[in-house]
Amino acid sequence: MGGERSPERVLIVLHRPIPEPVQADIRHKFSDAEVTFYKSQQGVPVPPDHLSQHPILRESDIHITTSSGIHGPPIAEWTVMNWLVSSRKYVQTYEAQKAHDWQDKTGNIGEMHDQVGKKVGILGYGSIGRQIGRVSQALGMTVHAYTASPRPTPESRHDNGYIVPGTGDPDGSIPASWHHGTDRESIREFLAIGLDHLVISLPLTPQTTHLLSAEEIAILSDNCHHHASKPYVTNISRGKVIDQKALIDALRSGTLGGAALDVTDPEPLPKDDPLWDAPNVQISPHLSSHGKEYFPRSLDILKVNLGRLAKGEALINDYKRDKGY
Amino acid sequence: MGGERSPERVLIVLHRPIPEPVQADIRHKFSDAEVTFYKSQQGVPVPPDHLSQHPILRESDIHITTSSGIHGPPIAEWTVMNWLVSSRKYVQTYEAQKAHDWQDKTGNIGEMHDQVGKKVGILGYGSIGRQIGRVSQALGMTVHAYTASPRPTPESRHDNGYIVPGTGDPDGSIPASWHHGTDRESIREFLAIGLDHLVISLPLTPQTTHLLSAEEIAILSDNCHHHASKPYVTNISRGKVIDQKALIDALRSGTLGGAALDVTDPEPLPKDDPLWDAPNVQISPHLSSHGKEYFPRSLDILKVNLGRLAKGEALINDYKRDKGY
Repeated sequence: MGGERSPERVLIVLHRPIPEPVQADIRHKFSDAEVTFYKSQQGVPVPPDHLSQHPILRESDIHITTSSGIHGPPIAEWTVMNWLVSSRKYVQTYEAQKAHDWQDKTGNIGEMHDQVGKKVGILGYGSIGRQIGRVSQALGMTVHAYTASPRPTPESRHDNGYIVPGTGDPDGSIPASWHHGTDRESIREFLAIGLDHLVISLPLTPQTTHLLSAEEIAILSDNCHHHASKPYVTNISRGKVIDQKALIDALRSGTLGGAALDVTDPEPLPKDDPLWDAPNVQISPHLSSHGKEYFPRSLDILKVNLGRLAKGEALINDYKRDKGY
Repeated sequence: MGGERSPERVLIVLHRPIPEPVQADIRHKFSDAEVTFYKSQQGVPVPPDHLSQHPILRESDIHITTSSGIHGPPIAEWTVMNWLVSSRKYVQTYEAQKAHDWQDKTGNIGEMHDQVGKKVGILGYGSIGRQIGRVSQALGMTVHAYTASPRPTPESRHDNGYIVPGTGDPDGSIPASWHHGTDRESIREFLAIGLDHLVISLPLTPQTTHLLSAEEIAILSDNCHHHASKPYVTNISRGKVIDQKALIDALRSGTLGGAALDVTDPEPLPKDDPLWDAPNVQISPHLSSHGKEYFPRSLDILKVNLGRLAKGEALINDYKRDKGY
């Protein structure tokens, strides 16, 4: 940074206290800047879409950048963990250990199966979908990507956002096939390509609400020809993207082999909701992105961008006011 | 195969009944051959090392081929599943689901962590270690390989055995570093390179018995500098490679962050063994290689080799009588 410039001012706003070691780390990362921490008011309910109505967003041209890209590794790990817990019958092993019971193993040979050769369809091939694709490919699976807009050229398949080093699919070379569309017919064509796994990683919009209903589940199931199991659905998006009643029916009837759900409709899921006990479902309370790495990675984006600002370069993860993301 | 040749004769010997669909699949795979199924006598205890004393092995030069290479995918999946179950606190989620309890998630942010940037050391970089390496790299980890003999050249790093298509590390390009040796000092040097994960995938020999004792565990722990956790040990080899008493002590004291054990000393592990309840240990009853794919993959090796025999080519996975494997 040039000598004439006033120091950068960094304002960190969070809805809960920031632990002292994290504060120290932040001051160290931005040692040339004035760093201020501000805890927003606790106990005051935050209205929906409060950020999208904020004057800074609506009435200024101050750069806003997102944390997009930091969630790939934890959510991909959460996803693959759930697949393996299901296919390798981990819960049986866990319960046997609790009982100090060295189970006779012969019964398990035919029940367990692995992921090699399976087809995973990823609805929404963004930073999260790409890391899921990367690990899937390493497991021996083939990856099929679905995006809203067409990606016909190598350039259009690049990931131009923040990428956690050593992860993801920066140049979009992993998928065996690319599909696209925003209408229901395009989605149905995608569900018919013979998927063993469907991963839902789409934003919730009026178009994606109940995107996966009974008819779509039937298309997915009827076209899965794997010998070992019926299709497995993973939802890391929002609960309302799936018609939850139809999902429960499909799990009960065996139309689907299982589901991993980090999101439900509603949240929290009420104690008496039938989803809790549906067969072969694994539910977690919207925590798949969590972990010790959450804040350090968010700050890495800020750090990268302060460097780019100082050099007059374009920012990464710049919020586009016209698109709303 | 030439017209003058007599048909291949395929004899399948197994200690238990072979299900009819598997028999049909085998006859289909070897439709040009005479296929005979033979179930060896049940209820008769098999003496240790019965195969290595068998006259076919000792007194003939009939080709014997091994199933080496088929275990990579299931054991790698078992390994990575256990890492993620531990680091992502899966058991908390599972128990909460059983109780229909949508846990407050804020408490988990700081407990969970991911694998990006972690160093895994793989003691025994064979077909299993290579598939673990492949998935580890996809997760964003760095892989460090240890072999008995030096592998200084690209050729020496190739995997020349059977490889499940789409898996493994055929040309040995994944490791960030290669290490070797058969003496304890070489192993200790390897344990000191700053590993977050140690995977034991070595055969049990007099040299590898209690290879990981209290002193080796201390070296491993003292050199791990990761902020999130102490080293995690995965044993997919044989129980006696680890001094189990020292392992329990290390888990109790926090010298180790956790362990995934598919093998114990002895097996079955007695109901009152203190290992069952050691902190952060995940035990399974020697089942990591199991799955529906076990027999089809074994037969793929036979099929590949029948093709090679017909063409006069060298067999893969040929048992070397002089080396004993």
